[in-house]
Amino acid sequence: MKFSRKVERCGLSPMRKFHPYAVAACERGKTIYHLNIGQPDVETPPAFFDAIRSFHQSVLEYAPSPGIPALIGAIRDYYAKLGIAFDDDHILITAGGSEALAITLQCILDDGDEVLIPEPFYPNYNTMVCTCGASIHPVPTAPEKGYHYAVREQIEREITPRTRALLITNPGNPTGTVLTHDEMRMIADLARERNLFLIADEAYREFVYGGENLLSFAAFTDIDDNLVVIDTVSKRFSACGARVGCVISRNAEFLGHAMKYCQSRLSVATLDQVAAANLYTVGPEYFAAVREEYKRRRDTVVRKLKQIPGVQCECPGGAFYLMAALPVDDADAFQQWLLESFDDHGDTVMFAPGEPFYATPGKGKNEIRIAYVLEQQKLERAMDLLALGIQKYNETH
Amino acid sequence: MKFSRKVERCGLSPMRKFHPYAVAACERGKTIYHLNIGQPDVETPPAFFDAIRSFHQSVLEYAPSPGIPALIGAIRDYYAKLGIAFDDDHILITAGGSEALAITLQCILDDGDEVLIPEPFYPNYNTMVCTCGASIHPVPTAPEKGYHYAVREQIEREITPRTRALLITNPGNPTGTVLTHDEMRMIADLARERNLFLIADEAYREFVYGGENLLSFAAFTDIDDNLVVIDTVSKRFSACGARVGCVISRNAEFLGHAMKYCQSRLSVATLDQVAAANLYTVGPEYFAAVREEYKRRRDTVVRKLKQIPGVQCECPGGAFYLMAALPVDDADAFQQWLLESFDDHGDTVMFAPGEPFYATPGKGKNEIRIAYVLEQQKLERAMDLLALGIQKYNETH
Repeated sequence: MKFSRKVERCGLSPMRKFHPYAVAACERGKTIYHLNIGQPDVETPPAFFDAIRSFHQSVLEYAPSPGIPALIGAIRDYYAKLGIAFDDDHILITAGGSEALAITLQCILDDGDEVLIPEPFYPNYNTMVCTCGASIHPVPTAPEKGYHYAVREQIEREITPRTRALLITNPGNPTGTVLTHDEMRMIADLARERNLFLIADEAYREFVYGGENLLSFAAFTDIDDNLVVIDTVSKRFSACGARVGCVISRNAEFLGHAMKYCQSRLSVATLDQVAAANLYTVGPEYFAAVREEYKRRRDTVVRKLKQIPGVQCECPGGAFYLMAALPVDDADAFQQWLLESFDDHGDTVMFAPGEPFYATPGKGKNEIRIAYVLEQQKLERAMDLLALGIQKYNETH
Repeated sequence: MKFSRKVERCGLSPMRKFHPYAVAACERGKTIYHLNIGQPDVETPPAFFDAIRSFHQSVLEYAPSPGIPALIGAIRDYYAKLGIAFDDDHILITAGGSEALAITLQCILDDGDEVLIPEPFYPNYNTMVCTCGASIHPVPTAPEKGYHYAVREQIEREITPRTRALLITNPGNPTGTVLTHDEMRMIADLARERNLFLIADEAYREFVYGGENLLSFAAFTDIDDNLVVIDTVSKRFSACGARVGCVISRNAEFLGHAMKYCQSRLSVATLDQVAAANLYTVGPEYFAAVREEYKRRRDTVVRKLKQIPGVQCECPGGAFYLMAALPVDDADAFQQWLLESFDDHGDTVMFAPGEPFYATPGKGKNEIRIAYVLEQQKLERAMDLLALGIQKYNETH
């Protein structure tokens, strides 16, 4: 049977590649410390489960296609507290940030179009862009410069006649890079001047560790036509399994097109929306505690990394990821070796090899992404295992 | 800003067109009897809410991309009871039947391709096919022949070199048409011989009123390469708001491609999957009671319709919809008149005008879809309002 050329161009998730080796290692009795996945270990606020348990309608009906009013109102109010004004009809509830992104890209892209994305980037962008018939054009960065990309010339030189949008993940996954206000302003100007959509994936907005205010591209009201904000409760409230996100824009034409997709899939899960609305009752002390915890973890990871000879790593400002260049020939081979041939008292460690985060062939080969979603003690152990692994691997390779 | 040509070809849901008029009518104090929406009024089995309330993990984590094993196992066992064998990895859990359909079409279709669909059909198929760059090629039917389409020559003559798939909704929405075993066999043969995907949307499988066994195209094991089954808990368990469905196939290559989409959107809502798995513990007495109730409603609607002079309508075998041709010039204008200019003791009625269910221009103009999702007494009243409305409308137009 013949399949769509678009889906044939896509690959399966590279993040799952080592899953069978991990399963095999566990079966041989190894304990694996996971630094490879973006699933936070922080408790979901009880407000979520409270709302679910107090739901007492007897028929679980479809929600409205744009989302339930209570959740839309809660998101609007959340932004108002950041000093950002949205109308209710600027917000369309989606099945996680993932659906928000997929809908946005589908609305914008035609065959042969390009989306400019600083690399390294979140690998699922590949499938989402590819299945639109478009491709990712990377804005290159370098580990020795802390993956910094927010330089006008650096971005501008990658714009081609086929560039339709600039997709910015801020704070960044996988790098943890956080843009300054001035950098955001420059990117907003660039999008407006060059008539590009600016897709701002701000899933990690709360996770900044420099004591700064929470920023959003939506604060710039002179890019209303260009801007689409991708948001989600997944990381904000450690509620990844709720699959509740939203796409936000002040561009009425864009919203009209996005609504077509929303209507065609009818609605987002009703109960999860009800519960997500209740998450927004959580107070600032929740975020302060979570931020404090992640900051401590980040500091641990960076401190430990800097102690490993030959590792290149800058201290990132946000998210709960960082990228580092290792003194190994091939992070992929190293990961497989860690699972198959290494242990220290029965323990080993997993990270995400860097290559799938790049669009430029050959880049990222000696880099890794670390997700610091383990509690302090386990994190220390995981980092020790990484250090020991690098030493032993280089002794034998 | 420039948008995707594909999304520009799509329209907003025609089902929502009368919403503002309905709101206005309500504001003027009218009571509207809704025969226009597919939202069942039957209670969701308490098993769903029980499972939700007994969920006691503290972190609401992502589910696996293909779905949680408990739900996949429950669906596999459900099919086993129908005499149909699936492996667990034939089943991918999706956000409702809608996502199952969208993923399937995206995997199969390229620009310019065609999907053969008997008309009238579920209008959301339009957006789903259109956004793949493909188009719907209708298999025409006629109200006076009970919308019957399962004739080999009738389908075969519509196949073109661009036909990639045959999409069959059985039992049918909006017609309620139920295929016989022999008709299904003929369609299966046709798909195999002509090397077409057969996408079987069997969302209404349980809703058959002739005492027959529940049928699925999946019973034919000689079309494993061709067949993709779309399934959902939405109608089966009156759990539309759960947004839990699945795509099922024995074609490994198709499943590989579908998995790319599943991975790119990470997962389906975790709690809804846990609860949906528990729905499958509901016994046959649940379905017997629901079936009995809908059969009674269908009989009421058909009896009442046949009493209206000039109405053309055959008694359909399943689902909870039927199409009828009315003795009015334009069902759209008639609906608007019912909302704006008609009432009987303050009451009026809504149905779904027929045109959006057709791909052939001009067809369906005097037809309507009725969804019998109201309890008996309200249904009788709604049908009386329809009869009275037709009479008055024709007196004044």
